[in-house]
Amino acid sequence: MNKDDMILISVDDHIIEPPDMFKNHLPVKYQQDAPRLVHTDEGTDVWRFRDVVIPNVALNAVAGRPKQEYGLEPQGLDEIRPGCYDVDERIKDMNAGGVLASMNFPSFPGFAARLFATEDSDFSLALVQAYNDWRIDEWCAAYPARFIPMALPVIWDAELCAQEVRRCAAKGVHSLTFSENPAALGYPSFHDDYWSPLWRALVDTDTVLSVHIGSSGRLSIPAPDSPPDVMITLQPMNIVQAAADLLWSKPIKQYKDLKIALSEGGTGWIPYFLERVDRTFEMHSTWTLQDFGGKLPSEIFREHFLTCFIADPVGVELRHRIGIDNICWEMDYPHSDAMWPAAPEELSEVLTAEQVPDDEINKITYQNAIRWYSFDPFSHIRPEQATVAALRKNAAGHDVSIKALSHHEKGSGSSLAGYKEQIAAATTQLT
Amino acid sequence: MNKDDMILISVDDHIIEPPDMFKNHLPVKYQQDAPRLVHTDEGTDVWRFRDVVIPNVALNAVAGRPKQEYGLEPQGLDEIRPGCYDVDERIKDMNAGGVLASMNFPSFPGFAARLFATEDSDFSLALVQAYNDWRIDEWCAAYPARFIPMALPVIWDAELCAQEVRRCAAKGVHSLTFSENPAALGYPSFHDDYWSPLWRALVDTDTVLSVHIGSSGRLSIPAPDSPPDVMITLQPMNIVQAAADLLWSKPIKQYKDLKIALSEGGTGWIPYFLERVDRTFEMHSTWTLQDFGGKLPSEIFREHFLTCFIADPVGVELRHRIGIDNICWEMDYPHSDAMWPAAPEELSEVLTAEQVPDDEINKITYQNAIRWYSFDPFSHIRPEQATVAALRKNAAGHDVSIKALSHHEKGSGSSLAGYKEQIAAATTQLT
Repeated sequence: MNKDDMILISVDDHIIEPPDMFKNHLPVKYQQDAPRLVHTDEGTDVWRFRDVVIPNVALNAVAGRPKQEYGLEPQGLDEIRPGCYDVDERIKDMNAGGVLASMNFPSFPGFAARLFATEDSDFSLALVQAYNDWRIDEWCAAYPARFIPMALPVIWDAELCAQEVRRCAAKGVHSLTFSENPAALGYPSFHDDYWSPLWRALVDTDTVLSVHIGSSGRLSIPAPDSPPDVMITLQPMNIVQAAADLLWSKPIKQYKDLKIALSEGGTGWIPYFLERVDRTFEMHSTWTLQDFGGKLPSEIFREHFLTCFIADPVGVELRHRIGIDNICWEMDYPHSDAMWPAAPEELSEVLTAEQVPDDEINKITYQNAIRWYSFDPFSHIRPEQATVAALRKNAAGHDVSIKALSHHEKGSGSSLAGYKEQIAAATTQLT
Repeated sequence: MNKDDMILISVDDHIIEPPDMFKNHLPVKYQQDAPRLVHTDEGTDVWRFRDVVIPNVALNAVAGRPKQEYGLEPQGLDEIRPGCYDVDERIKDMNAGGVLASMNFPSFPGFAARLFATEDSDFSLALVQAYNDWRIDEWCAAYPARFIPMALPVIWDAELCAQEVRRCAAKGVHSLTFSENPAALGYPSFHDDYWSPLWRALVDTDTVLSVHIGSSGRLSIPAPDSPPDVMITLQPMNIVQAAADLLWSKPIKQYKDLKIALSEGGTGWIPYFLERVDRTFEMHSTWTLQDFGGKLPSEIFREHFLTCFIADPVGVELRHRIGIDNICWEMDYPHSDAMWPAAPEELSEVLTAEQVPDDEINKITYQNAIRWYSFDPFSHIRPEQATVAALRKNAAGHDVSIKALSHHEKGSGSSLAGYKEQIAAATTQLT
């Protein structure tokens, strides 16, 4: 397939929240207490919420910058592409990248919105709901067919979380961002019956539990002085812990329609993982008492788990060992693993090298995403308008040139020297 | 190749230390203070050393037991095969398993012998040296050509560790068991210049740093109530953390002859890992300032790292993406991942399914081990005496039948119920 003819849906991109997001959706009585974006005297932007300051407002949103600057996390909205936080600009960037539709994970509240968990549950719930309503009714509604909607969870209360899943599903949402390991955040683990109301809500509403790498709040850093490359290398595959923890869990056995996405986890390691779980079952199930009703854990995996990749050649080569219906492409805009705006070219090169037939390309690039996330773009856009080439025509004149950005032109020191502060900031944000 | 014609060297097995190991090698003044194996009133065996009790004397040494009992860790020497601790019996078990030679990791002192680190460095060093002398001069010397000798490190002192590496190398040892993450044990990390004397000693003596899974002292358990299958699934691939931490480290760049084995880490995930490190280099080296002198990290990996597998079909299929000179087979006797005595049958099935040619089989089953570990069995045994079939002839009459063992016949409760105590005991032992 020619790259121009591909239809691309990305199941993992990121939104950098704009300052006015709470304006239309939070009850007046809470407006004064809502998180606010503050422009500091140093020229940076930070989110402030009670005694928490999130300095890394634009976590790793380096799209459009030269690679030399990747290590210098953007410090303000004026250092990132407007497409990170402005929906009209986002659509232009998506068009330039040839991407039909995108699912966007949150930034400043954390992947599981733990920032919003206060001692005042009503207030916290209002924040989650305001965020979700802003996302659904403003961001996604502005451009029908261009965004897979995603809800934030009520991470501190399983029953309220279930209610919020149902409320959002009624508005067309079939994806919930969640922690890959709630126990690491201080909540009951996936093995605790505490979460039963959530599992029921998810399966009742065909909502996918989307667990993103890093959403345990734990970064993969073996030693305090490990070079940054170590964490960057390890972070995607680290989601294997969530894959194993969920695959061997009770909910997987109890809810046959439960669906989980391993967002940004990559695919190349999955075939080994499936071998390993089957061998573990063969060697140990007699005493661990695991029972999948006559099936192997690898079969159960394919019934429940979606894997997501940017460009893994090994994963594409071994796609049938993973499951051709269990793989979705993702772009990761605006983070540093993304190849935007050249993502179609990068992906096409891998697909071509592995001689992937058209029907399998279509599954990977959009059909699986449509099915897993109950998403229907084609009632709004005809397929021939949705291809890479057709979308890029709409982006004529849109500036996608790579630019060094303001603060760095002024010189803010070595990227490497600032790494430890960035890790500390990221940890604040992720947890 | 017919399985009977394979020559098998296993680069990862385990020794359960016998009670008399310190007798001939520890100075008299330290004999009273040495660790001792104590038979308890409950019929179990525990190692006692100062205020530490290692209850799990035979950590996971379940070879020869029915799988239903795998979860019940053996509690005493009378519950494990004598081949675990008696070298004559070990040779019989190796013959029955068709294995020419074996490298054995320690058990009760921990993979990095941290148990021996006391406030009295002279005493601690004497323990390490006694262990190493017992291993080299008794265990290995009893059967020339049948064991790849391995030394324990002086984990608490890099200079003394370097001296011990040189001392043992003079006695023919080219393998050092070490921690996959010394920082996790409270020592300086791989990135600290502290270890420079060790790196120099290793390369001067052609000694491989053999880092075994679990040797950080950290088990892969996402939540306290994760089922045991989760840890069993995750433990091998968890060594990816050490692989990344070492691959991006300074010593790899400074010592071109430094060799590292990822013992029991498996192979099927390595191709993905190599893609990931190359992509990390492509996207980030401009700011992380990584420089491998014009080479890619995947090339550097193949110059320095040995991977080890029991039976991974994916790893065998992708062997050329890993590096055919970077793969060694291992048996893992007497632990629960081992298929002893049917290991040759299991391995042969995988090699046959992937149609691996004979010259590649030979590299994987013994030639790579000989080269990486500077090991020379064929000055003692002719190759035609070293095959699976030839060795098994020597084991005629040796009992390899699967047996339920004494304590369990008396009924010691459910395997699953005892899992948490076993994890606690294993953690004591590993750290």
